[in-house]
Amino acid sequence: MAKQSTKERIIIEGARIVHEKGFNNTGIHEILQAANVPKGSFYFYFASKEEFGLNILDYHNSLVRQWMAQHLEESGLSPLASLRAFFEGLCQKHETTGCHGGCPIGNLAQEMADLSDAFRAKAEEALTAMRDTFARCLEAARQRGEIDPTTDPLETADFLLNSWEGALLRMKAHKDVKALEIFCRTIFGRVLKE
Amino acid sequence: MAKQSTKERIIIEGARIVHEKGFNNTGIHEILQAANVPKGSFYFYFASKEEFGLNILDYHNSLVRQWMAQHLEESGLSPLASLRAFFEGLCQKHETTGCHGGCPIGNLAQEMADLSDAFRAKAEEALTAMRDTFARCLEAARQRGEIDPTTDPLETADFLLNSWEGALLRMKAHKDVKALEIFCRTIFGRVLKE
Repeated sequence: MAKQSTKERIIIEGARIVHEKGFNNTGIHEILQAANVPKGSFYFYFASKEEFGLNILDYHNSLVRQWMAQHLEESGLSPLASLRAFFEGLCQKHETTGCHGGCPIGNLAQEMADLSDAFRAKAEEALTAMRDTFARCLEAARQRGEIDPTTDPLETADFLLNSWEGALLRMKAHKDVKALEIFCRTIFGRVLKE
Repeated sequence: MAKQSTKERIIIEGARIVHEKGFNNTGIHEILQAANVPKGSFYFYFASKEEFGLNILDYHNSLVRQWMAQHLEESGLSPLASLRAFFEGLCQKHETTGCHGGCPIGNLAQEMADLSDAFRAKAEEALTAMRDTFARCLEAARQRGEIDPTTDPLETADFLLNSWEGALLRMKAHKDVKALEIFCRTIFGRVLKE
């Protein structure tokens, strides 16, 4: 594996801190400190804090795409079973890790969409890519007769994604995975009739 | 009507700015300037910026409760019709105002839940109050035979609230009410079968 560049290290450490504390609440100094990079070198790697933030979004987008493809398109399960396993796995993960953080892309969309159009556009691009993966999965489930044949894959994928983002937001406020469990029961019990 | 106190004016102006910019991204100085209050007097009214933030949450909670009661409990419509009119009215409002801001309580929950337990608890309290109003409405709809009798009012109300919060988040990122329209179609067409 190639050695991690200093820029990559700043992005990875920065993404972690921003996920914990929010973008505006994170200082450049603490990112450099966590990445073990000399103070003052930030602007050698990034033209602005905004550009750094856009790099963080690209980083999360790339990880989420790989991870969704692995769980939804290469799982070996049927499309509907892989979707169910995907969300149930996330419930377990959040239960284990204490219901912190939520979705890093959703958080940045919420915090930054009205403050920077570049942030907004990149966050929406990442959300649309997530929606498209769900839509492919739902289309495959429809073709196999696993869900109601009148289901519109694209619109239902948007609903799934948005409702999941809201469930994660509520999970953070409640510090409980109940919102995620209700999401699973309602989506699989009512929205996607098997 | 009683004259607005200086403290009330700071809370109202502060709530507006925080809704636009986020809590951590809003400076005390700009709040005082907007409220036309002398610089330096903030700590006469609030022990800390956090206490000011908790006052903002109380302010939004009180407005949202009044407004939900008015639209869901005193509308003169049937329970299900009032719920539909409530969400369709919000779609129109956001379409008119350009898909900015989103839910002030949801935003603060997302931004602050992991940073301050006092914020988290108060945001969850406000979200629970919203959930309870939806649940009363759904229970009334169930008793009238307007929705599937097997619907669990409390759990479905949680799902409604969380999915709506997620739809608002996506609306901000997309700058389009499509997410809100999909919410309405899916909730009333699939989750709440009439």
